[in-house]
Amino acid sequence: LPDKPPDTQGWALLLEYDGTGFAGWQRQGQLPTIQSVLEAAGAKLGCPAPCIAAGRTDAGVHAAGQVVLMHLPGRLPAIRVRDALNYHMKPHSIVVREVTAAPAGWNPRFSAIGRHYRYRILDRRARPALDRNRVWHVHHRLDVGAMQEAAQSLLGRHDFTSFRAAGCQAKSPVRTLDRLDVTRSGDEIIIIAEARSFLHHQVRNMVGTLALVGAGKWPVAAVGEALAAQDRRRAGPTAAAEGLCLMSVVYDVDPFAKGPGSCLGQRVNV
Amino acid sequence: LPDKPPDTQGWALLLEYDGTGFAGWQRQGQLPTIQSVLEAAGAKLGCPAPCIAAGRTDAGVHAAGQVVLMHLPGRLPAIRVRDALNYHMKPHSIVVREVTAAPAGWNPRFSAIGRHYRYRILDRRARPALDRNRVWHVHHRLDVGAMQEAAQSLLGRHDFTSFRAAGCQAKSPVRTLDRLDVTRSGDEIIIIAEARSFLHHQVRNMVGTLALVGAGKWPVAAVGEALAAQDRRRAGPTAAAEGLCLMSVVYDVDPFAKGPGSCLGQRVNV
Repeated sequence: LPDKPPDTQGWALLLEYDGTGFAGWQRQGQLPTIQSVLEAAGAKLGCPAPCIAAGRTDAGVHAAGQVVLMHLPGRLPAIRVRDALNYHMKPHSIVVREVTAAPAGWNPRFSAIGRHYRYRILDRRARPALDRNRVWHVHHRLDVGAMQEAAQSLLGRHDFTSFRAAGCQAKSPVRTLDRLDVTRSGDEIIIIAEARSFLHHQVRNMVGTLALVGAGKWPVAAVGEALAAQDRRRAGPTAAAEGLCLMSVVYDVDPFAKGPGSCLGQRVNV
Repeated sequence: LPDKPPDTQGWALLLEYDGTGFAGWQRQGQLPTIQSVLEAAGAKLGCPAPCIAAGRTDAGVHAAGQVVLMHLPGRLPAIRVRDALNYHMKPHSIVVREVTAAPAGWNPRFSAIGRHYRYRILDRRARPALDRNRVWHVHHRLDVGAMQEAAQSLLGRHDFTSFRAAGCQAKSPVRTLDRLDVTRSGDEIIIIAEARSFLHHQVRNMVGTLALVGAGKWPVAAVGEALAAQDRRRAGPTAAAEGLCLMSVVYDVDPFAKGPGSCLGQRVNV
């Protein structure tokens, strides 16, 4: 864990962003990234150090509930921190939904005990008009029942090498998938994925593989076989970034919760 | 009803569009409108006459299920009509979801027996990032319970003069409101409004009035009193266009329904 810069207060930020047009969360030189926009806003308030996010979302991936730690000098009220950051991030499609003082030793990434992602597929002939850049557009109808059945074969603790990006930096390919539910709502398929943590591209690689089953190109049983093969070449392609959204990050104690159960017993989102 | 142009086939189109940046449905000289984009695409296929929509949505208002009648020469398959119109409407955020041959005498506006609208309010301090241009942003939390209670006083057959735009061209201000439900989902308030037809700005004026109740500026009973006054000055302001979406238009027989219950017994959205 990085040390807390001296004379600063650590703030937990709850972030929402539209990932369209950004090269992902992480700072990458001069490319537009979520981190670079947030840190530029933080710099206006004297932020001396890089921010840490719970999950480093890829280019084009969205967040409704990313969690970030930012250090700021002085003793600003939480509401002022939120409003000032939002002011300085205009007109970018990034906002701080809530802010709360971070407890000592808390780290958004290593303290997290769960990540919830949502993946949206629009499976119809006409391209999306209202949900452009929010859904993966698949031109033909997919069989949601078959996708849901196949998804269940990925639940539990496994070596997910078959669904791991080549550049993934995690030490171990073993993860425990707690939930992978595939449901339909009209012309849209919604996939909810929950785990303590995911490998790089794991959700998108699982979705791309399930889409093969939904299209009738793969039998349901092939998904479990791809998992067992522990070989990236045995699973399906990576689903498009724009369908993915980091919905929430789970902690033992929700830093943003209202009331005495909160780490601060303080609600800042009035 | 306009006559059917000779040697043409009438097509019922199910349209989805993002109303952002458009001056509404209706053709208005050189302004960008949904109708002008659709008719320009239709002209490529030989469309000889104006299209008719079930509801003339205002500037910035969206549709997930607008219904339009377009006449085209020849006997194209429905799927070709849909794909050709979508091709010619690129890159505008307007798509034809489905196409079906219109029965003789069918008119999308006068044959309709119901309109379903959804209105979305984001009531939190931080501006919308993911739903920019899709929700009305209200900076303070609204009381949904009070809004729902007040909404029920508008149900039924009434003179809705208090909620009618000055320029409304309807002959009578009397409408029958079948449903007005206000519910919360996280930081969002969703209002579902259903009636055979609505006056101009009626949904947005009802929402703007309910928001006064939600903000605690008006007591619940004031909404029924505003209705009874039959005076536009007695009701609240017009809610923002971007929160409104025409979800669906109801007909005795759904022209887009699959199977033998359809007006054609034919499903075109493969």
